[in-house]
Amino acid sequence: MDLMNHQFQLAARPVGLPKPGDWHYTEGPVPEPGDGEALVKVLYVSLDPAMRGWMNESRSYIAPVGIGEVMRAFGAGRVIASNDSSLAVGDHVTGLFGVQEYAVVNARAAWKADTQLAPLPTFLGTLGMPGMTAYFGLLDIGAPAEGDTVVVSGAAGAVGGVVGQIAKLKGCRVVGIAGGPEKCRYVVEELGFDAAIDYKSEALGEALAGHCPDGIDIYFDNVGGDILDAALAHLARHARVVICGAISQYNATDAMRGPSNYLALLVNHASMTGFVFSDYLDRVPEAATEMAGWLAAGKLTAREDVAEGLENFPDTLLRLFRGENTGKLLLKLADD
Amino acid sequence: MDLMNHQFQLAARPVGLPKPGDWHYTEGPVPEPGDGEALVKVLYVSLDPAMRGWMNESRSYIAPVGIGEVMRAFGAGRVIASNDSSLAVGDHVTGLFGVQEYAVVNARAAWKADTQLAPLPTFLGTLGMPGMTAYFGLLDIGAPAEGDTVVVSGAAGAVGGVVGQIAKLKGCRVVGIAGGPEKCRYVVEELGFDAAIDYKSEALGEALAGHCPDGIDIYFDNVGGDILDAALAHLARHARVVICGAISQYNATDAMRGPSNYLALLVNHASMTGFVFSDYLDRVPEAATEMAGWLAAGKLTAREDVAEGLENFPDTLLRLFRGENTGKLLLKLADD
Repeated sequence: MDLMNHQFQLAARPVGLPKPGDWHYTEGPVPEPGDGEALVKVLYVSLDPAMRGWMNESRSYIAPVGIGEVMRAFGAGRVIASNDSSLAVGDHVTGLFGVQEYAVVNARAAWKADTQLAPLPTFLGTLGMPGMTAYFGLLDIGAPAEGDTVVVSGAAGAVGGVVGQIAKLKGCRVVGIAGGPEKCRYVVEELGFDAAIDYKSEALGEALAGHCPDGIDIYFDNVGGDILDAALAHLARHARVVICGAISQYNATDAMRGPSNYLALLVNHASMTGFVFSDYLDRVPEAATEMAGWLAAGKLTAREDVAEGLENFPDTLLRLFRGENTGKLLLKLADD
Repeated sequence: MDLMNHQFQLAARPVGLPKPGDWHYTEGPVPEPGDGEALVKVLYVSLDPAMRGWMNESRSYIAPVGIGEVMRAFGAGRVIASNDSSLAVGDHVTGLFGVQEYAVVNARAAWKADTQLAPLPTFLGTLGMPGMTAYFGLLDIGAPAEGDTVVVSGAAGAVGGVVGQIAKLKGCRVVGIAGGPEKCRYVVEELGFDAAIDYKSEALGEALAGHCPDGIDIYFDNVGGDILDAALAHLARHARVVICGAISQYNATDAMRGPSNYLALLVNHASMTGFVFSDYLDRVPEAATEMAGWLAAGKLTAREDVAEGLENFPDTLLRLFRGENTGKLLLKLADD
């Protein structure tokens, strides 16, 4: 093969928001897949808040990306060569393909995407890691009951939007928190939330008190910081706080901020529980089937926010941390 | 009756540690009990960390003590007059009697203490609110399994000492955190903990890593602040953090500090759950029976730290917040 591969490697560990100098853009030959491996042409790269944590030196639930290594990212693409019987040339697949045009992957680390069910980009959003994260976090940890008041931060994002929609399917009253009038409109009018709070223009405490007169039964947090503290101040008894992320804190250059209102847990006999998607890998097939059913029945709305061109990866990642995306943020590299 | 009552009333809402001027010491006639009420001679006043929260204006799980009202406190005493068939003169009782020598109480708000089972002071400690707090917090929220590693802060205090002993009864490995060599000795030699860490002289992170090589399965927190953060940094997967109190923060004059390491919950699929004793009022009889059995069988050690004289109440309360007590801190007002 004479194909050339381009990739973004991590050149330095960022301090605060990733800078252009933290990346190294490279060109090189596409490697041959070995036994049990396949070569995937990457069509979409997924931009996810978790990527910022992967760039730090400290190990958390997954090893950090090494300096000089291709940046880790979920992606979706098409198999163009295969040395494993489970994958055929032409198959659509998703997996941790990295920020690059071609990926050699172990066949067991690629998930087939049935594009009869949904368009390929949706397998990086509502039917992918963000959607599964929403599904397990809300249903397994939040444990919604009919009539519960559910509040979701990052409500216009890839995870938050799915959390709110599933909560509606379960008979909950759902309030989203998002930044700006357009995101709030999207959340209510397109996703069917009962209400949305624009944290950039409203007094969050008053707005939560107004929309949640009996307190919050489930708070699904994607952002941390002031918004988490405001939600803690409005918990109902036996509330469940689901800690999915803390995007407001990932690029902090001073110390991480903890929730100063955490004794609200004590006063309300409430819990705060964290998780990551990979905790539920063995249950993904079950969730994917149910989510695909909801999508097919028109009970879930999936939306992707698609930028184009591998060279735009650094800027597109910054859009995520600036909260500029509505729906799942993707980078399209090539037509299928 | 010509008895005179002395009491400490709340004169002002403290800023930081309570000052002498925050109290008003009064003398007045002992009131007559009405229908359904009894008059109790208070023999012991209980000093508990929660009292500091009751002095603040903001409502939490219980209304604040009003300015000019007798300071709320648990106490133990003897019935000296009764207008209710459920209580007889001579009965030993405990309840929220306040910081005073005589209390008129609704008979349904007084619990009989069977001093055949244990000495009266123990009904304010191991068989009282602190012991029940330890029992429900550890067993109901911590849910210990044999072989779990349990870490307890405030280990030489009234709650922490019981938590560790019950955890040992359940087959756990127990590490206490306490301030000073004498408390650490007490926790290991007298209460049977496996180890103790002196947070005043040891590097807490290193000590936790050394004593908990497989991480902490249950962290029972009475203190908050740096110690909570250090424990969060050493959680095992699926750890349960029990939030019982935050004595390090109760007298803070700047903003309450939240646990900056709270994303350890996310990384470890761990939970942090709060509670107060009164959440479990309906299960107190069950717990009291089991705890009394353990005490009678010599499986639990109860220790009280007893100061004397109502006039010493303000200073004795400060001893609690300075961490100067070992075991349950009480103020004895009179001989039985």
